[in-house]
Amino acid sequence: MFPRSTSPLAPRLALAALAFGLLPAAASARPADGTLTLMPIPQSMTVRDGRFRVDEDLSIAPAEALVPKGAGNVMSGAAPRAVKAARRFMSRLSGRTGLFFKQDYLASRGPSGEARIRYAYGRPGAVKPDEDESYTLTVDPAGIALTAVTDIGVLRGFETLLQLLSADERGYYFPCVAISDRPRFTWRGLLIDVGRHFHPVEVIKRNLDAMAAVKMNVLHWHLTEDQGFRVESKVFPKLHELGSDGMFYTQDQVRDVIAYADDRGIRVMPEFDLPGHATSWFVAYPEFSSAPGSYSIERKFGVFAPAFNPADERVYAFLDAFLKEMAGLFPDPYIHIGGDEVEGHQWDASPEILAFKKKRGLADNAALQAYFNTRLLKILTKYRKTMVGWDEIFQPALPKDVVIHSWRGPQALVEAARNGVRGILSNGYYIDLCQPAEAHYLNDPVPADSTLTDAQKALVLGGEATMWSELVTAETIDSRIWPRTAAIAERLWSPASVRNVDDMYRRLGQVSVELEELGLLHLKTPDMLLRRLAGGPEIEPLRVLAEAVEPLKGYKRHDQAAYTSLSPFTRFVDACAPESLPARAFGKMIDLYLADRDPLAGAEVRRALSAWKDNHALVLPFLAASPALREVEALSLGLARACGVGIEALDHLLKGESRPASWAKDQANVLAEAAKPAAHAELAVVKAITRLVEACAGGAAK
Amino acid sequence: MFPRSTSPLAPRLALAALAFGLLPAAASARPADGTLTLMPIPQSMTVRDGRFRVDEDLSIAPAEALVPKGAGNVMSGAAPRAVKAARRFMSRLSGRTGLFFKQDYLASRGPSGEARIRYAYGRPGAVKPDEDESYTLTVDPAGIALTAVTDIGVLRGFETLLQLLSADERGYYFPCVAISDRPRFTWRGLLIDVGRHFHPVEVIKRNLDAMAAVKMNVLHWHLTEDQGFRVESKVFPKLHELGSDGMFYTQDQVRDVIAYADDRGIRVMPEFDLPGHATSWFVAYPEFSSAPGSYSIERKFGVFAPAFNPADERVYAFLDAFLKEMAGLFPDPYIHIGGDEVEGHQWDASPEILAFKKKRGLADNAALQAYFNTRLLKILTKYRKTMVGWDEIFQPALPKDVVIHSWRGPQALVEAARNGVRGILSNGYYIDLCQPAEAHYLNDPVPADSTLTDAQKALVLGGEATMWSELVTAETIDSRIWPRTAAIAERLWSPASVRNVDDMYRRLGQVSVELEELGLLHLKTPDMLLRRLAGGPEIEPLRVLAEAVEPLKGYKRHDQAAYTSLSPFTRFVDACAPESLPARAFGKMIDLYLADRDPLAGAEVRRALSAWKDNHALVLPFLAASPALREVEALSLGLARACGVGIEALDHLLKGESRPASWAKDQANVLAEAAKPAAHAELAVVKAITRLVEACAGGAAK
Repeated sequence: MFPRSTSPLAPRLALAALAFGLLPAAASARPADGTLTLMPIPQSMTVRDGRFRVDEDLSIAPAEALVPKGAGNVMSGAAPRAVKAARRFMSRLSGRTGLFFKQDYLASRGPSGEARIRYAYGRPGAVKPDEDESYTLTVDPAGIALTAVTDIGVLRGFETLLQLLSADERGYYFPCVAISDRPRFTWRGLLIDVGRHFHPVEVIKRNLDAMAAVKMNVLHWHLTEDQGFRVESKVFPKLHELGSDGMFYTQDQVRDVIAYADDRGIRVMPEFDLPGHATSWFVAYPEFSSAPGSYSIERKFGVFAPAFNPADERVYAFLDAFLKEMAGLFPDPYIHIGGDEVEGHQWDASPEILAFKKKRGLADNAALQAYFNTRLLKILTKYRKTMVGWDEIFQPALPKDVVIHSWRGPQALVEAARNGVRGILSNGYYIDLCQPAEAHYLNDPVPADSTLTDAQKALVLGGEATMWSELVTAETIDSRIWPRTAAIAERLWSPASVRNVDDMYRRLGQVSVELEELGLLHLKTPDMLLRRLAGGPEIEPLRVLAEAVEPLKGYKRHDQAAYTSLSPFTRFVDACAPESLPARAFGKMIDLYLADRDPLAGAEVRRALSAWKDNHALVLPFLAASPALREVEALSLGLARACGVGIEALDHLLKGESRPASWAKDQANVLAEAAKPAAHAELAVVKAITRLVEACAGGAAK
Repeated sequence: MFPRSTSPLAPRLALAALAFGLLPAAASARPADGTLTLMPIPQSMTVRDGRFRVDEDLSIAPAEALVPKGAGNVMSGAAPRAVKAARRFMSRLSGRTGLFFKQDYLASRGPSGEARIRYAYGRPGAVKPDEDESYTLTVDPAGIALTAVTDIGVLRGFETLLQLLSADERGYYFPCVAISDRPRFTWRGLLIDVGRHFHPVEVIKRNLDAMAAVKMNVLHWHLTEDQGFRVESKVFPKLHELGSDGMFYTQDQVRDVIAYADDRGIRVMPEFDLPGHATSWFVAYPEFSSAPGSYSIERKFGVFAPAFNPADERVYAFLDAFLKEMAGLFPDPYIHIGGDEVEGHQWDASPEILAFKKKRGLADNAALQAYFNTRLLKILTKYRKTMVGWDEIFQPALPKDVVIHSWRGPQALVEAARNGVRGILSNGYYIDLCQPAEAHYLNDPVPADSTLTDAQKALVLGGEATMWSELVTAETIDSRIWPRTAAIAERLWSPASVRNVDDMYRRLGQVSVELEELGLLHLKTPDMLLRRLAGGPEIEPLRVLAEAVEPLKGYKRHDQAAYTSLSPFTRFVDACAPESLPARAFGKMIDLYLADRDPLAGAEVRRALSAWKDNHALVLPFLAASPALREVEALSLGLARACGVGIEALDHLLKGESRPASWAKDQANVLAEAAKPAAHAELAVVKAITRLVEACAGGAAK
């Protein structure tokens, strides 16, 4: 048992430990007792007795003899993708265990019957939808066998095996298991918006690694926005030269990213948002917009007037040439054309466009956009690409082979499916809105109560987490994507029946640490920002405060300041996780206490309340030294007061005293005051403290 | 005053705060009292009354009117280098202050008389040795003027201005100063060895940013080694294809890095190490080595036999074609040809080479290498490059325009200078050896007692910190380079008289935090590695332990294991800073106490000793859960025991009791045991505790 009660360092330990199983048997979140931490959970798994020991003699090799029968052409040697994945597997395993493996796993290529980890597959996989990603993984005390129909399945299996790593008194081991696994949905994506803020290649790459670790397979690269045109065009170089502030990807870099993703079995689907969200295009080509005048790169966020002119034939010639170039650059069979949020003012104000609508019998702007989309579809079809668009583009008259991407609600997918059209879900997966992982986790593309037929359900291809980047920079983006996106990844891979929220959170904390080995900054950035704000290395009280705080949810943060793409995203709010796992654990601990008045839980709650209450005095000197931090005083003071209320309520509960309604009302007022937004953020623990007060007022004697 | 004594979190706070002024007035290391934290210290500075307020109205623009008279051609507008630097300046200032600047500093280009920060220069600078990097910076309450002969000087001035940022109760400000600054040495470099471990482009770029922040101006890119050939050759593609495990820079990436460095006023000098350290070349071209047989990429570290065959004319034709290609790729006027550590066995065993030596009258292998170098010199001269080589290449017969790079000792520079040959110093700047910053800081390329004439002294161009990468990966390299390299940067820029070690350390801690804004991982990596080792997010006791531990110094770590380029560099030792600033501060606090028995200092020492002693019990559960951590048990136990000894000694001292020599001997034995290497590391606090014991034994009553 961890000697928390004797340590002056205990409060933070206790808070963090709380997040991972409430009362852990050891300081580590890595279970030593055989509890597995797989995410996503496999389709089927049997755990057996026995342990495969991981030691310096560990070796890995492809093994043709293991190729499953009927799995296609027999592999001849191993394709580069599997060999490279095996090298990364060994490197990561060495990094986690600190073991000096004897095998030169970078050099060894050929099959070997003596390797202790052997892998095999039937044929190289194609990185496209509906490819077979299934695998079978068998761990025995003497050896490990990983087989799959395609090498992509092998990649997925390596990630599972890494997650199986366990430890006991003798050292590291893999538990003996038999796993048979395959994804529920074929489209498991992450959208990264590089338009509103640019994110360099290394950001994309480390997120591709993390996606692969949780078995996601589509990078949706949102490349153009009002605020920036982010891809080099050799046909129209003014697009990136004038529309990006110099922040764009060269075509070489794009090819590099695609190859990197392909190595990880991940598709790269580009989005060119049309006809709205297009201001940055018009910096170079104002003549293609629907209103005269020069344009500059948009700095603010929102829905803006500039839109392509659907009445101008030159626009289609331009887009044809541009999309032809991009169709050659991006091998994915899908291109996303956006289609969302056409503001309409430019169309309504243009005599040319009004006349065009009249002539064509286009009743409204939706019909005009439908016309535009039909023209785009023709272009994309010519270049053998399937069109994907946001749900605004859906209309029953469209051909059946488009894909509808739902952002406004799940109903769009239902309508599309009823019309025989495929769809993917992002509504409910907007990770930029700082909602808890739980909300995303329980959001199912095909809910249990779906009224669709099985054939219609099959048209729902999956979903995508969407990282819109108004409020994130390359410094902070990882901390907004991870670890919550891992919960979405599980929703899209694992059986629909996997819905235990507490167990998801138990695993999320450990997976989050494992994802760090891929270069993600999500766990590092908060401390960095706090150091920068403090102007020095010592930040402990700020850390303690940050654990009780979350950024404002939804779009509320935009009400707090006139954010632009040049604003600082280095404030305290940016150092706060979208969802504080310690705050969540604190709430669970209160519920545990309230459920049966467990004194141990009560003591833990009290310890947390006291630590946060006492923290305010420790925070104040930082505010004196750092003007940028002064805005957090209200949060820190509110936390101290709310915790004071909590302590008082807890004391009454511990004594079995009930309190009158007037008392509860007074306390509720204090808590309501503490719950107010400050510094673009809010306290994440007030609701839980409210439950303490309510229990106290509601006849707590027990 | 920070209320440390009442906080359960105090021990860590105290330890870290100790490092920054012993007893700081506030938690922050950013001084609120006007103390400046410039590094490197300028050549001349006058601080005046008054403060320039930094608020949202801050704006920046080039201002031709400010161009100093006689500073060359008048600038017309501002060159891209200065404009881009101004944007980065504003972005970093926004990030540090959290201020939403109203100016669209990305878009504004033209001169403006109204800007509050105005900059000007006489001509665009050339990124080459001996370029003028001087600048003048004047801060008045109403405005800031930065002028320079070249735009490179402007860049240097922006860095100084950023370091001037201060805070008071009203907000952020720049203190009013008049600074006139220029470097002491023209060659201020950092060598990064990408051969032994590969470091991707983003590692190089963020280190270029950090170099610029401390006014360094040469990236020495060590591109080839026995363990890897890291640059794409289009003329001989097998070199990188077979010699790099796929880890090399494309020529596009090289050009990108050079442009990035140029934007920051930094030269990029490539090194192709010849004729030894060349195993990776021979994987593709065994015929150019001095012994038959096939070669594979070397995994081990050391000095190996493979060397180019100086007797084979085909070798020179090959190197001519290769160096011609590289001379075109790298614009720097210097190419480093290595020349160090030719092992000799291949030369001694080859009848062909022995015959060649005899025929040419080459007495020994040194003479043979001199012959080889003369041939290389001829090739480089043809391609208008100046040859740089390690001190082995020096011989009086060489032409005077080579540059000698001293790694074996400062005497090489003296000899070269006496022979009229220029030199740069790296001996004493080997940052891979985990020596304290102090040692590097006091190591002067031209020591005060130098016997060289002034003309000879002028031949010493400067120096380079050398980041050899046997034991570092892309994950850990930043933490080995920074912050200690900032001390070397100051040595090479600031006047020779700037040698106050304590003041250097005071500034180093804050500069280290400021460097983080450039993307460096040096402060983030330790926690990351500890989380990985623990298998979970909670690491506080491991952090506390790591602050008392440093990696083994010099080459001693190589004795602890058979390290290869595939070894894990993710152990506890890799999470320990090369120099623990808290451990140093602890030692200073002991000295402070011993000097005058200040009871406050005594209390601080006791607090630190107790925290480390009690920490062992907190560490143990981590070891139970994580096999990779078990090796640190000896360190943790040794620390607890050493601190126990320290507490006992301190108790006696506080009571004014002297102890007999036998007691001191017993304690010394405990300390000697604790000082033994473990887990490839050692305790960094034992020497300081020894001083306590000695004081106690030596008649402490006072």
